[in-house]
Amino acid sequence: MFQKIALIGIGLIGSSIAHAVRRNGLAQTIAISTRKPETLAEAEALGLGDIYTLDPAEAVRDADLVILCVPVGAIGAVVEAIGPALKPGAILSDVGSVKRHVIRVCGPHVPAGVHFIPGHPLAGTEHSGPASGFAELFANRWCVLTPEPDVDRDAIARLSAFWAAMGSNVEVMEADHHDMVLAITSHVPHLVAYNIVGTVADLEADTQSEVIKFSASGFRDFTRIAASDPVMWRDVFLTNREAVLEMLGRFLEDLSRLQRAVRVGDGPALEALFTRTRAIRRSIIDAGQETSVPDFGRPHE
Amino acid sequence: MFQKIALIGIGLIGSSIAHAVRRNGLAQTIAISTRKPETLAEAEALGLGDIYTLDPAEAVRDADLVILCVPVGAIGAVVEAIGPALKPGAILSDVGSVKRHVIRVCGPHVPAGVHFIPGHPLAGTEHSGPASGFAELFANRWCVLTPEPDVDRDAIARLSAFWAAMGSNVEVMEADHHDMVLAITSHVPHLVAYNIVGTVADLEADTQSEVIKFSASGFRDFTRIAASDPVMWRDVFLTNREAVLEMLGRFLEDLSRLQRAVRVGDGPALEALFTRTRAIRRSIIDAGQETSVPDFGRPHE
Ligand SMILES: NC(=O)c1ccc[n+]([C@@H]2O[C@H](COP(=O)([O-])OP(=O)(O)OC[C@H]3O[C@@H](n4cnc5c(N)ncnc54)[C@H](OP(=O)(O)O)[C@@H]3O)[C@@H](O)[C@H]2O)c1
Ligand SMILES: NC(=O)c1ccc[n+]([C@@H]2O[C@H](COP(=O)([O-])OP(=O)(O)OC[C@H]3O[C@@H](n4cnc5c(N)ncnc54)[C@H](OP(=O)(O)O)[C@@H]3O)[C@@H](O)[C@H]2O)c1
Repeated sequence: MFQKIALIGIGLIGSSIAHAVRRNGLAQTIAISTRKPETLAEAEALGLGDIYTLDPAEAVRDADLVILCVPVGAIGAVVEAIGPALKPGAILSDVGSVKRHVIRVCGPHVPAGVHFIPGHPLAGTEHSGPASGFAELFANRWCVLTPEPDVDRDAIARLSAFWAAMGSNVEVMEADHHDMVLAITSHVPHLVAYNIVGTVADLEADTQSEVIKFSASGFRDFTRIAASDPVMWRDVFLTNREAVLEMLGRFLEDLSRLQRAVRVGDGPALEALFTRTRAIRRSIIDAGQETSVPDFGRPHE
Repeated sequence: MFQKIALIGIGLIGSSIAHAVRRNGLAQTIAISTRKPETLAEAEALGLGDIYTLDPAEAVRDADLVILCVPVGAIGAVVEAIGPALKPGAILSDVGSVKRHVIRVCGPHVPAGVHFIPGHPLAGTEHSGPASGFAELFANRWCVLTPEPDVDRDAIARLSAFWAAMGSNVEVMEADHHDMVLAITSHVPHLVAYNIVGTVADLEADTQSEVIKFSASGFRDFTRIAASDPVMWRDVFLTNREAVLEMLGRFLEDLSRLQRAVRVGDGPALEALFTRTRAIRRSIIDAGQETSVPDFGRPHE
């Protein structure tokens, strides 16, 4: 599909792309670049690519497809460094969880003739680093592409076909819409999970009692979400601030109403909400984005 | 271990106890009672017990151990109905998610000579009904018992041994402490999950755009929590109001601080919190209460 692909950043997402490209024969050559020598050595030991270099400009030379797989806060500097080395006609993409910010900081460094098509695979786990990737990460998951209106349609079609070949369902949407949708379906839930885990830790310290030990359903699931990479998530909140604050505002308004229902003991209102939300899960399972196995299929013996 | 056990209510928890009692040979006879004829018929078709009756007083007659497995809001009426039929020396327990309220409403109906030992297995899934139970549900999970100070120690030891035989780790604690710990580790997380799923549904309706379709990590997990039984959870919030409001208050204070960190772009504060919460998950995995399998072990192919 491509002669040479360059992956800049080789953590969970970068290494998963490397595996999926190999497994599906999507490129002749995979060039890998990352910041730290030890990460590069780990990627090489895992046999993730064909070319390994600490110089991202060298990695992207002659590449037909370049995918930036670094935290959103680091993307601008990377594009500035590789811009002059990009091949005319190449596709430049990324996997960052925030899209308007990426367009804002990368746009000025993308040379004319390079097709800049930001992307975001809605797939991930709570693990990080080159050893955490696997080829099936993107299978049956959405990959959202957010090109600006003037981007070459043929290039968009080629990048879409690439993600489809890794098993993804591709959707093209406007960057601002992406950021709004992700703010409420991913960023605010992460913020809330981080917050509750912090509250529990403080309570345990305050009361000198064991709270975490008795983590039941609810909290236990929140701790997984709150175990996600701190740097990646810091960058998400720093770069999608407006949408996150807007959605957090909606969330808080609704929570005030719910708090009041608890305070006044409004059973019918509570039951009505809880019944409505149950139906929504059905629709996600039916859409193939979730499993209905009890307790996430956690082993019970 | 016991001659006759009576289970009043035969949903997820009741049927899981029935399976575990059978598998581990913990009683000669299992008597089952529930409210609806169709639920009783389903339990009978599943072969969960030996005696099936719609009259709870009949079920508990001559039973050495009675466990109430109905929603917390229904417990008082059930105990009032069975009180006179309880055998002197019998142990009366329950599995309700709130404990002070259970003591308050049941206490007056428990005859002298019956050992009343409220309990709460910290185990569950998002499914309900007699067909959803399985014998291993309680394995390696906590079961908290909250007897009042004057309860017979020997009876507590016998009930503890019963839960241990089903695989649980048993902990005896004060009812108010239980309600406080569960408010923050389970009840507030559920409230927040219900709330966020509701906010997303409203947003989808408001903006006529597809939001739920792109449910990524975070929201997807919240939908599972928010798919839990509406009646059970309504009752939890109606009966553990004080502790829930107190813990929700702490949660909201912390969230205001986090909201401010996002608003002013305080990267170091965000990263520091996110790093701290990551360590807490480790401690839960180490305590054997969670699995470290990526993405909850969801199938990726
Ligand atoms: N994890 C998820 O669930 C998920 C899902 C969808 C999208 N994403 C997005 O994917 C991107 C990568 O996430 P990931 O989960 O793969 O992270 P990761 O496993 O932590 O890997 C990050 C990679 O970026 C490099 N890197 C970190 N800081 C850098 C810097 N300042 N300059 C240059 N390189 C740097 C790291 O290299 P060194 O080790 O050499 O520093 C590493 O190769 C992020 O933009 C994230 O928003 C993540
Ligand atoms: N699910 C969990 O994760 C979990 C975890 C720990 C503890 N608990 C506690 O366990 C108890 C039962 O929960 P569950 O998950 O097993 O619920 P479930 O699957 O919905 O079963 C509830 C049972 O209670 C009966 N019931 C419901 N309303 C009743 C009423 N008004 N009067 C008499 N019987 C009634 C139902 O019988 P009919 O069908 O005949 O009405 C059914 O047999 C609750 O107190 C809950 O707090 C639940």
